[in-house]
Parts: sequence; structure tokens; C-alpha cells
Amino acid sequence: MEIAMSVAPDTTEPTTTPDSYAPTERTVPTRSKERAHYDRELVHSILDETYLCHMGFVRDGAPVVLPTLYARVGERLYVHGSTGSRPLRMAGQADPGLSVCLTVTHVDGLVLARSAFHHSINYRSVVVHGTAHQVTDPQEKRLALDAIVDQVVAGRAADSRPADAKELAATAVLRVDLAEVSAKIRTGGPNDEPKDMELPHWAGVVPVARTYGAPIPSDDLEPGVELPEYLRGL
Amino acid sequence: MEIAMSVAPDTTEPTTTPDSYAPTERTVPTRSKERAHYDRELVHSILDETYLCHMGFVRDGAPVVLPTLYARVGERLYVHGSTGSRPLRMAGQADPGLSVCLTVTHVDGLVLARSAFHHSINYRSVVVHGTAHQVTDPQEKRLALDAIVDQVVAGRAADSRPADAKELAATAVLRVDLAEVSAKIRTGGPNDEPKDMELPHWAGVVPVARTYGAPIPSDDLEPGVELPEYLRGL
Repeated sequence: MEIAMSVAPDTTEPTTTPDSYAPTERTVPTRSKERAHYDRELVHSILDETYLCHMGFVRDGAPVVLPTLYARVGERLYVHGSTGSRPLRMAGQADPGLSVCLTVTHVDGLVLARSAFHHSINYRSVVVHGTAHQVTDPQEKRLALDAIVDQVVAGRAADSRPADAKELAATAVLRVDLAEVSAKIRTGGPNDEPKDMELPHWAGVVPVARTYGAPIPSDDLEPGVELPEYLRGL
Repeated sequence: MEIAMSVAPDTTEPTTTPDSYAPTERTVPTRSKERAHYDRELVHSILDETYLCHMGFVRDGAPVVLPTLYARVGERLYVHGSTGSRPLRMAGQADPGLSVCLTVTHVDGLVLARSAFHHSINYRSVVVHGTAHQVTDPQEKRLALDAIVDQVVAGRAADSRPADAKELAATAVLRVDLAEVSAKIRTGGPNDEPKDMELPHWAGVVPVARTYGAPIPSDDLEPGVELPEYLRGL
């Protein structure tokens, strides 16, 4: 009876739902737990807003973090690289895959508090823990590469010359399923101590954003090729 | 004699100079070697342009990548965190320190080629491999925290209430020396194949930049506290 009591009874609420990722020991932060989120839509929105992640992997026991282009397709991330690059080769050799951590961060604001201690950053980040597998199916690889181009500029893949067999062979694509995932968000103004409120230091938030400049055509662009519609909205 | 010949003779030129970091096996890329740089000034300029890095470390054999505030002070990076956060606790427990990789990336442009294959990103990144040690000296810790505040907004540390003993105790600072460091840079337009030059697809670069909005004062800001000079130039 005591042993039976020590395992979770069948009536336990599941910790995951179709709408959210199941928290795990490593996706629950040790501090600022109120900033952690597991909602799928929220995670997707953070991932879909950019195209560059920082991918970590372990090489000879030490961590390596590289900036890497990615795309989200449903509950899957695709990561792009040369077949000659280290993590891609490692994932191809590794069985059952390469353990990775992919992190995406948007900085939304600088939070200036009256005290040095309460200075902070408003941000939205997603951390994905998982196993990277090389995509070997040519059809999936082609779709993944299109998705990576479209993640950078939506609509661009259809308006470019598709990869040929040689180019496909020279490109490696890794697949990571979205399963062990969390978002972390900080919003709002500074959280100063009550005793500091009357100090003469300015306090508030400086918004930070990513902006796009006017597209610069290549010098050798054929005459008559106009700027496509999908680039005017950036 | 053969054995003597197989080791580096004393007359070998040093691979490092006061002006550059010595390349190592893991800071020499396996591809696009022409994009790798070891010049100290260049590395410093990339590090000094922002305040957020992605720090990787290994936990239970798996990689973890977290967005983290940092500051550069000479040939040293300081990384900031709560004493309760995992990497900070791990660095405190670990002897001789925690193996880390700190990566900083600026996206400067989207490179749109006529072929999907040659799409790229213009970027400048720095990757720092090293060992993180907890800063225990109170004076160094205070200087490091000031540096982290000033890395976000130059001049701000002096215009805020300094950390008190309790706040200092609640904050952990890691130190990583700049020794095994490389930068990677891509600039310029698309590198299309000669056969693709007459294709009807627009080609060029879309500039990307980080911009700051007008500072938003806290609702509870004391009347008469004006926006400081160092925030007007952002």
C-alpha cells in the first residue's frame, strides 16, 4: 500500500495539453518561474518572428554555440548548414542523433531602474532542447530548405531558382522536434524598491526593435527587374 | 633527427601577436575560412556593440544555451546572473570552473540571391571558448556589475543607486578570459552562379539594424526628473 501511494495515481492531471508543451526538469527555471511559459502558440509566435537561432552542442565535452538559420514547420525546426560544418557532420555520424539546444531571443526594451541592481532587459526567448537528426529524404530536404528561405523573407522561395541536385547534396539539414520547449518573457517597467522611488535617477524603458532598410539591388541586376511586393512590406 | 623534425622548431613564427588571438583547432572553421578573423580590435568592436550573448554550457552531458547579459572589460568578459540560476551555481561548484561558449551575433543584412542555394545573411559574430569562474572579490564584483550596466547604456552605472551588500550577495558574476576567440563576418551582395545572372529574380541586400524608440518614462517617475543626456543619443 505504501509503495502504491508513492507512485502517481491514475487520476493525476496530465501536465501537458494539446495547447502547451509539457514542462520538464530542465525547462522549469530555478528562478523567475513566473516568466516561463509553455503555450504552443506563444512559442510559435516567438520562433516565427525571426530566422536566426543560437544552436548549442557538445564537442569533446565542451559546449559550442553557433548562430544558425532555421525554420519552423509545424512542431519541427529545421536547421541549415554545409555538409562540411562540424555540427552537421556530427549529427550525421551520431546515432541516435546529436543533442542540441536551440535558443531564439528578441530584445524588446532596455529597463532602466533607479537602482543598478534592478536594471533589466525586456525580452522574449524560446529554448528548445532536443536531438538533431540529419534529413536524408530528398523531398523533406527540399521542403526544409524552402522553409528556411521563406523564414527569412516570406514568399521568397517561390521567387528564386530552386536548388539543383548538386546544391542539395552540398547542403545538410538537421531536424529537431519541438517537444521539450519553453518560452521566457519579461515585459513592463522597472521594479524599483519603494525606498528608491524618490531618487533623482530617470527610470523607464527604452524600446528596442529590429528594422529593415531600403533594399539595395545588386550592381549586376538585370535591367527591368523590379523590387518584388514581398520586399516592400519589410 | 626525425623526431626532432616532427616537433615545431624554436624558430617557428608565433601564431599569435599582441594584436590578435591565436587560432586554435576549434576556432578555425571547417568551411568559409576566409570569413574567420582573430584581430583583437575587430573582436572587441563586435563585442562592444551589444550587451546580450548566448552562453552555452553542458549540463548532465547535454548542451544548454541561455541569453545572458555581459560586459567586456579589457581582455575579460563578465556575465551576470542570479546566484540561484543553474550556470552560476554550476560555475560556483565546479572546480576548476565551468566550460562555456559565449556567442554574440549581429545581423546586418538579408542576402537575396537569384538561386535559393546562395541566399545568406550578412552578419558579424564572435565566439568565445573558455572557462567561467565565479567572481568572489567584492571590489571586482562591483566593477563588473557597473560594467554590465554601462554595456547596456554607457554612463548609466554612475547615474543609479549602487548595489548594497544584500544585493551584491544576491548577484553572481562569472568571469571568462578572452583567449580562445574568433570573429566571423559576411559582407557584400549575393554570390550567384554565372548561369543564373539573367534570371528574372530580384537580387540584392536588405539592410537590418537594431533601433531604439523614444524612451518611455515610468508612470511613477518623480516630477522634474529629466531624460538624461546619455539616453538622447541612442
